[in-house]
Amino acid sequence: MNNKKIKNDLNHQAIGAIRYIGLKAIQEAKGGHVGMTISAAPITYTLFTKFIKLNPQDGKWINRDRFVLSGGHGSMSLYPIFYFSNLLTLDDIKKFKTEDSKTPGHPEYENEADNFIDASTGPLGQGFATAVGMAIAQKHISNKLGKYSDLIDNFTYVVCGDGDLQEGITYEASAIAGKYELNKLIVLHDSNKYQLDSSVEKVSIENLKQRFESNNWNYLKCSNDPKEIEAAIKKAHSSKSKPTFIEVETIIAEGLKSQSSNKGHHGVVNDDDLDQFLKYHHLNFKDWNIDSKIIEHFQKNVADRGNKEVQKWNSKLNKAIKDKEFHELWNTLVSSIDYEKLFANIKISENNLATRVYLKTFLQSIKDFNPFVIATCADLVSSTNVAITEETILENGQSLPIGIREFAMGAIINGISLYAKGAKAIGGTFLVFADYIKSAIRLGALMKTPSIYAFTHDSYLVGGDGPTHQPYDQLPMLRAIENLNVYRPADEEELRYALIAAFNSFTYSSAIILSRQNIKSLNSTIKHSDIEKGVHIVKECKNPDYVIAASGSEVQLALQVAQDIENIKVISVPCLDLAIQMSEKEKNKHFKAKKLFLTLEASADYKWFGLHLNHQNNYHIGAYTFGKSMDGDLLYNQKGFNKQSILKLLKKYN
Amino acid sequence: MNNKKIKNDLNHQAIGAIRYIGLKAIQEAKGGHVGMTISAAPITYTLFTKFIKLNPQDGKWINRDRFVLSGGHGSMSLYPIFYFSNLLTLDDIKKFKTEDSKTPGHPEYENEADNFIDASTGPLGQGFATAVGMAIAQKHISNKLGKYSDLIDNFTYVVCGDGDLQEGITYEASAIAGKYELNKLIVLHDSNKYQLDSSVEKVSIENLKQRFESNNWNYLKCSNDPKEIEAAIKKAHSSKSKPTFIEVETIIAEGLKSQSSNKGHHGVVNDDDLDQFLKYHHLNFKDWNIDSKIIEHFQKNVADRGNKEVQKWNSKLNKAIKDKEFHELWNTLVSSIDYEKLFANIKISENNLATRVYLKTFLQSIKDFNPFVIATCADLVSSTNVAITEETILENGQSLPIGIREFAMGAIINGISLYAKGAKAIGGTFLVFADYIKSAIRLGALMKTPSIYAFTHDSYLVGGDGPTHQPYDQLPMLRAIENLNVYRPADEEELRYALIAAFNSFTYSSAIILSRQNIKSLNSTIKHSDIEKGVHIVKECKNPDYVIAASGSEVQLALQVAQDIENIKVISVPCLDLAIQMSEKEKNKHFKAKKLFLTLEASADYKWFGLHLNHQNNYHIGAYTFGKSMDGDLLYNQKGFNKQSILKLLKKYN
Repeated sequence: MNNKKIKNDLNHQAIGAIRYIGLKAIQEAKGGHVGMTISAAPITYTLFTKFIKLNPQDGKWINRDRFVLSGGHGSMSLYPIFYFSNLLTLDDIKKFKTEDSKTPGHPEYENEADNFIDASTGPLGQGFATAVGMAIAQKHISNKLGKYSDLIDNFTYVVCGDGDLQEGITYEASAIAGKYELNKLIVLHDSNKYQLDSSVEKVSIENLKQRFESNNWNYLKCSNDPKEIEAAIKKAHSSKSKPTFIEVETIIAEGLKSQSSNKGHHGVVNDDDLDQFLKYHHLNFKDWNIDSKIIEHFQKNVADRGNKEVQKWNSKLNKAIKDKEFHELWNTLVSSIDYEKLFANIKISENNLATRVYLKTFLQSIKDFNPFVIATCADLVSSTNVAITEETILENGQSLPIGIREFAMGAIINGISLYAKGAKAIGGTFLVFADYIKSAIRLGALMKTPSIYAFTHDSYLVGGDGPTHQPYDQLPMLRAIENLNVYRPADEEELRYALIAAFNSFTYSSAIILSRQNIKSLNSTIKHSDIEKGVHIVKECKNPDYVIAASGSEVQLALQVAQDIENIKVISVPCLDLAIQMSEKEKNKHFKAKKLFLTLEASADYKWFGLHLNHQNNYHIGAYTFGKSMDGDLLYNQKGFNKQSILKLLKKYN
Repeated sequence: MNNKKIKNDLNHQAIGAIRYIGLKAIQEAKGGHVGMTISAAPITYTLFTKFIKLNPQDGKWINRDRFVLSGGHGSMSLYPIFYFSNLLTLDDIKKFKTEDSKTPGHPEYENEADNFIDASTGPLGQGFATAVGMAIAQKHISNKLGKYSDLIDNFTYVVCGDGDLQEGITYEASAIAGKYELNKLIVLHDSNKYQLDSSVEKVSIENLKQRFESNNWNYLKCSNDPKEIEAAIKKAHSSKSKPTFIEVETIIAEGLKSQSSNKGHHGVVNDDDLDQFLKYHHLNFKDWNIDSKIIEHFQKNVADRGNKEVQKWNSKLNKAIKDKEFHELWNTLVSSIDYEKLFANIKISENNLATRVYLKTFLQSIKDFNPFVIATCADLVSSTNVAITEETILENGQSLPIGIREFAMGAIINGISLYAKGAKAIGGTFLVFADYIKSAIRLGALMKTPSIYAFTHDSYLVGGDGPTHQPYDQLPMLRAIENLNVYRPADEEELRYALIAAFNSFTYSSAIILSRQNIKSLNSTIKHSDIEKGVHIVKECKNPDYVIAASGSEVQLALQVAQDIENIKVISVPCLDLAIQMSEKEKNKHFKAKKLFLTLEASADYKWFGLHLNHQNNYHIGAYTFGKSMDGDLLYNQKGFNKQSILKLLKKYN
C-alpha cells in the first residue's frame, strides 16, 4: 500500500523525516505514541519552520514564541525537529524515555538555556490552559511596558488533541482566553479522529466551531497540507481581539497498518512497520540517516531564522534600556527581586484578625513594587482578599478575575509563572476547593514554578456552609506534593514570612492556608532562620514536661492550653514540609518532652507523625471526619479542638 | 420602591412565600445566600408545583423525578417548598444551618425516607454532572426493564447558576448528556447575571445557546414568569433525543437594596430588608405566617399530586411483578444482593499477573448477575480493563465510554450510585489522574455513595511515561477522605475480597489501586475476617524479630526480603484505612517485633505511621519525590524499593 496522491516535495520529505525519526525512537524505546507522532508532524513542522521564533542559544529567551504540546504523548512529533535544528543530538533522540535523557516520554520543562520545552505536559488539557496563562502574561507585560510594548510581542502556540478538548479545563481556559481577548494565542488541533479506546465520535459529537465561537474565538479548519496550515496560521496572526482555534484534519498513524483506527494511538514499531511507513509515504530513509538537504532546511528555517530574530530583538532592547526608567522596569521583569524588601516593611495597623484579612495589605503593596505580578481569584475576592488592584489587567491593573474556574486558574498561574522571573502569580479560593486544582498544583510543583496559592477558610471553623465547604482532607493532599511548600501561618508575622518565602522562590510552589475567623496575634519575635526550618517557638521552656506543636488556627488553642500547664513549650509550625526535613538532632532539640510531645492540627494529615520521636511519648490530635453545617466554633469544639479535652489528655501522661 | 408591574396572583404570592420564608430563615441564621433564594424561587416553584413527582411518604421512592439544586447555596429557594408541602416543619426552617437540622446550609443527601434531597451540592458544577449520572441510570435501567420500561420513566431536573456553568465539569457532563441523548434531563439556569465578585459578563461572555447546541442540547430561554417557565419545561418534555437547557432570566435579590448587583449574592437580612422586600413585591406576610390558601396550594400541587402519581405507579408495579422473571429482575434493582456469591466463585485461570488484568475477569462476570451495574472509563479501557461488556449502554450493554472527562466521570458515578440500590457504577483511569476527580470522590464519600473506582498504574513502576504519569502523592490524598476505603490488593485473591467489599457497600465509596506490572501471586489463604480488618498475614512467624507491613506492589518486595531473614513476619495491608482502625491490642498482636517494625509503600502516605507502636523501633520506607521518565523497575530500585537497601536497613536494627 502506498499513497498515490502524495506530492513528494521538500515539505513532505521534511515531515516524513520527523515522523520517521520519531518512529525509530519509539522502536528503540520498545513502544510509544506512534499515532500522534505521525498525525501532528505537519503541524509542528509548519509551526517551527515558518513561524516560531526561538533563540537556539537560549531556550528561555524571554520573547520567544511559546509552544505547548498539550497532547504531551506526541513528544516525538517535536523532538526530531529539535534534533534536525541542532537543539538536540541524535544521541538524545536514541535515549528516548531513558534515564536523564533530554527526550522524556512527555516533554519536560526545565529552567535551563538548553531546554526548549515551555511547559511540561501529559495530564490532558493542562497544556492548553497553561498556554492561556502564558498568553495572559505576554499581554499584561506588553501593556505594562508602555511605549516599549513590542519587546514582548510573542505568540503562544498550542498543539492539542481530542483528549485535551474533552477535559473540562480546556473549556474553562477557552472562556478566559475569549474574555481576555488573547489574540496572540493560537491553538492547533491535531484532529485525527481517534483516541485510545475508540473513534472520537463514539464519545464526542461536539460541534467545535460552535464551541469555540461561543467563547469569542475564531474557528478555522484546514487539511494537513503544510501550505493550508501556514495559511490558517497567517490568518490567525491577523486577529485583532480573538484567540484562534485551527482544526487541522490529520490522519492517525498514517502509513502504518493501524492507520485510521484507535489501535494507531500507541504501540510498538518493528522493521516491517518502518518499511511499510516509508513505502506508503514514498520516502527513502535508512537507519538513522536523514538527507542533508532536509537537515539544512531545518537549520535554516528554525535555527538560523531564530538567530536573526534574536539579533533584531537584541538591538531593539539595547536601544530601549538606554531609557533609565525603562531599564529599571525591565530589570524587575527579568531579574530576581527580593520581596523581603517589600513585605518586611509593611505595617499592619490592627492585629488579632483573621489571617486572610492581612493578606489584603500585603498584596496591595505589590502594585508599586512589581507591576508584572498578577493576582487572580475564583470569584471569591471579597472572601479571600486575593487582589492587588481593583482594576483588572484589561484596565491596566494587576487583577485577573477568572470566574469560578479553579482548575484553569491553577494552570494559568503556572503559565504566568513560567513566563518570566518577574511574572509571579497568586491565586485564591477556599481551601476545600484546592481539590479542583490538585493536578495543576502538582504539575506546577513538578516544573518547580513559583506558583502561589492563598487558600482561605481553613477548617471546620467555616461553620454553616457545611461539610462541602469545611476542609479537613486537603492538607495531606497538598503536603504530599514535592516542591510545594504549604504554609499555615498563625498570625500576621508568620504570614509575612510565608509571603516572603513564596514570592522569593524560583524552585518551588507555595500554598498559604489562611483562616476565615479571627486569630489572636502571637506577639512573639520571629527569627527568619526558624521560619526557614518551618518552626517558630511561641512559648519557650527549658526541659519541658510537655511540648505542643501546632499550625495556623490551632496555635492559639495550644497557647490557651499552655496557660493552665507549667513547664510547657509551644511551637508553631508554619511549614510542616520544612519542619519535617530537620535532622533527628534538631527534632530532639525542639520536640523532646519529659512527659508528652503533642502535635495538633484540625486536618487528616498524618505527616505530623513524622515529627514524632522514637522512644518517647507522642500523641497527635487530628481531624479525620466530615464536618457539619452548624456554628463553626461549636463544631470545632465537638471535634476535640477545645482546651478541656486537650488538658485531659495531657493529664493522662502525668 | 415597589414593582408596579407585578401581577399579584396566586403564583406570585406562592413564590413570594418561598422567598419570604427563605429570607426569614437567613435572618435567623445571621446570614445566607439571599440572591439565589429570591431569583431561583420562580423556577423551584414551577418545578415542584407543576412537574416534579415525589412520594411524600418516601423521599427515596425509586421513580421519583430527581431534582438537583446544583447551586446548593440557594437551598432556601427549596426548603420553604418542602415546609409548605409538609415535608419539613417550620421548626426545621428556623433551625437553618444549626446542628443536625434538616436544613443545612447546602442541601445534604441522606439515604432516608424523610430526606427529599437527591444529591448533596455546594462544590459548584458537580450537581449538574451528578444529575447527568442520574439521567444515565434512568435511561439504562428503563432499557433493561424491557416491556416494563415505563416503571422507570422519571425526569431529572437541575437548577444551576452561572458559577456551575463556569466550572469545567459542566461542559464535560454536557458533552456526555448530549452524546447519550438524555432527553429526560432538563437543566434550568437561574440566569441572574451576577456572581459573588461581579457581574457575570465581567468574567464570561459565553453564548450559552451556541454552547449547549454544540453538544446536541435544546436551548430555550424564558422570563421568570412561572407561566413561561412552565411552557418551556413542557416543550423540553417533548424532546425525543436531546437534553434541554432552559435559561430563565431572573433577578438577583429582587426587592432588596442589593438587587441586581453582586452585593445581592449573599448577606445578612434585617427587619427593614424584609419590609422593603414585602413592599416591593406587594406582599402582606408577617412573622412566620403564610396565608393558608398558599399552604393549601402547595399541599395540593406538591404532596397530593405526588401521592396520586405514586398510587398509579404502585398499581403498575403490582401488576408487573406478577411476572416472575420481571420480579426477580426488579429485586436485583431495588434490594441488596450479595456480590460474594458472584466474586467468590470466579475462577482465575492464570496467576502472577498484573492486578489490573484480573479485573477484566471479575467485571465481565457482573453481566449475568446484575444488568444494572455500569462500568465507565476515561478512555483507558485497554489499560485499566474497566468494562463489563464490549457494548455500550446505548447498545444494550453495560459499558459507558465517557471520553477523557475524569471529573464528570466521578460525579456521574455518584449519580448512578445514588439512583437505586442495584445501580452500582465502577469507573477507571490511572491512579495519577485521581487528581482530576478528587472533589467528586470526596462528595460521593460525604453522601456515602458506594461509588467504586479502579485506579491502575499504581506507582513509579509506570516507567517511561514519566513523572506526570507516575503516582506517589495520590494515596495520601485518597486515604484522607472519610467513608472512602482505599484497597491496594497484592494479588488476585486480595482483589477478589476488595471487589466484594466495594460492591457490597452501601455506606462507603471504594478506590481499588491496581498495578500495571505483573506481581507474583501470594498463594496464601485469606480469611475474610482479616481482610475486613485491612490486613492479611502472608508470612506468619511467632515472636518475630522483624515485621514488615506493605501493600500492593510492595508486598512481593517484602517477601523477597523475608527470604533472606529468619524470624520475620510479612503482612499485606490491602486496606490501610481499615487496618488503622484496629485497637492498640490488635496492632500489638499483628505488628509487635523484637527488633523492628517496618512499613513499606511507594507512596507519600504518612498514614502508615498510624500503625507504628509506641516504644518500639518503627521505620517507614515511603516515596516522597517525583519520578522520572525511565524504565520503571530501575526507577523503583533507585527510589529505595529494592531488596538490598531494605536488608541493609534491617541489619542496622540487629
